[in-house]
Amino acid sequence: MPAQPPATFSNGVHHTEVRVRFGDTDPYGIVYFVSYFRYCHRAIEEFLKSRGLAPEETFKNVSEGFGLPIVEAWGRFRRPSRYGELLRIETRIQEVRPKAFVFRFEFYPETGRELLAEGTATLVAIGADWQARKLPERITAALSRGR
Amino acid sequence: MPAQPPATFSNGVHHTEVRVRFGDTDPYGIVYFVSYFRYCHRAIEEFLKSRGLAPEETFKNVSEGFGLPIVEAWGRFRRPSRYGELLRIETRIQEVRPKAFVFRFEFYPETGRELLAEGTATLVAIGADWQARKLPERITAALSRGR
Amino acid sequence: MPAQPPATFSNGVHHTEVRVRFGDTDPYGIVYFVSYFRYCHRAIEEFLKSRGLAPEETFKNVSEGFGLPIVEAWGRFRRPSRYGELLRIETRIQEVRPKAFVFRFEFYPETGRELLAEGTATLVAIGADWQARKLPERITAALSRGR
Amino acid sequence: MPAQPPATFSNGVHHTEVRVRFGDTDPYGIVYFVSYFRYCHRAIEEFLKSRGLAPEETFKNVSEGFGLPIVEAWGRFRRPSRYGELLRIETRIQEVRPKAFVFRFEFYPETGRELLAEGTATLVAIGADWQARKLPERITAALSRGR
Repeated sequence: MPAQPPATFSNGVHHTEVRVRFGDTDPYGIVYFVSYFRYCHRAIEEFLKSRGLAPEETFKNVSEGFGLPIVEAWGRFRRPSRYGELLRIETRIQEVRPKAFVFRFEFYPETGRELLAEGTATLVAIGADWQARKLPERITAALSRGR
Repeated sequence: MPAQPPATFSNGVHHTEVRVRFGDTDPYGIVYFVSYFRYCHRAIEEFLKSRGLAPEETFKNVSEGFGLPIVEAWGRFRRPSRYGELLRIETRIQEVRPKAFVFRFEFYPETGRELLAEGTATLVAIGADWQARKLPERITAALSRGR
Repeated sequence: MPAQPPATFSNGVHHTEVRVRFGDTDPYGIVYFVSYFRYCHRAIEEFLKSRGLAPEETFKNVSEGFGLPIVEAWGRFRRPSRYGELLRIETRIQEVRPKAFVFRFEFYPETGRELLAEGTATLVAIGADWQARKLPERITAALSRGR
Repeated sequence: MPAQPPATFSNGVHHTEVRVRFGDTDPYGIVYFVSYFRYCHRAIEEFLKSRGLAPEETFKNVSEGFGLPIVEAWGRFRRPSRYGELLRIETRIQEVRPKAFVFRFEFYPETGRELLAEGTATLVAIGADWQARKLPERITAALSRGR
């Protein structure tokens, strides 16, 4: 992948926040693991916007003939969070491949640096036929900025 | 509305069940009111299928040029339900109008007839232009069967 | 209810915003009616905070021996909203009764005053025995401020 | 781990089904990856019940002083599924460790053996102090049955 920057970088971290809402917890008041994945998608949307990519034209773009479905996701949930808490999410591009890229997420409390949860999500570029294709140039360029 | 049957009827009740799942409650273990509306939609889907209407061709049908969005919903939540409980839903057509129809839902516990929650949902027929239109004949016919 | 202000008032409107997220729509890209009710709860949480009431100590407060479950909700969905749109929510206290109060919600687009959706939610004060009780003084006072 | 059975086994597969519901998709009608994780939790609930473990007394059991939070989850989403489809879920215990166990999930269409999605979820036993502890004997016994 000569055209792509190296996977490690010191900047390029996007910061966003999410408030734990009423329907986000399990019956015991602890954030349901499923909600973290929902928060991750929200972090992706905010990340894309920060790079000038409108999410509603990026996950599926009919006119340019591509889609970017999430094909893999992983999360580790280290400390419980509770209803009403504010979570800070740090989002990075962990890897850019010719046809895919990987986000990395870290969740921190409102104050302090205790890692509450972490995760990754892999998006693959597909064409109208749902077959993998090369990432559109402008997407790769936008994702690689600031790294 | 001479073509429609009267709004009251003794049969035509559809029965379905829903299990309260892990993510359906509030932080205190009580079913979140939002989840009841989700259960109502599920009851509509099961009701439609019982009348021979595939939900995925009924809420929006491009080839026949109609959609059936929910334009109004109401619910009253009388008794708390908890994680793991089985809820029985009784679904009726409360009213059929030329361009719309109204579902009525009643939620009961696994055993007994204590009314846990009740609600309604109104669906309006629209055309490709999102303007209200007459309900397709076959929809009206299917909904009116067994009343 | 001599202690309560009249139900109509020209101020006391709380403004908040919500972004339509990836999982909030139906299969056709239109905001699912259930999501509006979730947005309403979020608006309640923001409203309560603006009045100095922490949601996580207001919906259920063990030490003070009260809860505030939502016992009734209603919504009318007038115009479709789509993924990625910003919705502005105006929240008011429509009514304060001795044991209950009613929120009113109006949804507007990012710009303009077209009413997209509207709704209400009724919260009742209950004691540890789940029986209706008088609203705690400090709750009534906080809700009545600025009206 | 001499007390645990080997990780591979030919039986012990639990089968359940889930219908793709109206709110489970993304704006393009494809099942949202977050929904798969919700389906996985549902499969866990059904699996536990098939082993005689009531979910509402298993994820958190105050009287026996243990909880079983999900501390890690992973999913790969191979083929798109759409609104209205029936998904068959095969659930296995992939691994039982002294303080944790791992579920493996495979999603198949209503007919055929094309793998639509797969995933895992790791549950750790914790005590009232949220520290990891040995799995309760009866849980280990129930999970190991039929392997």
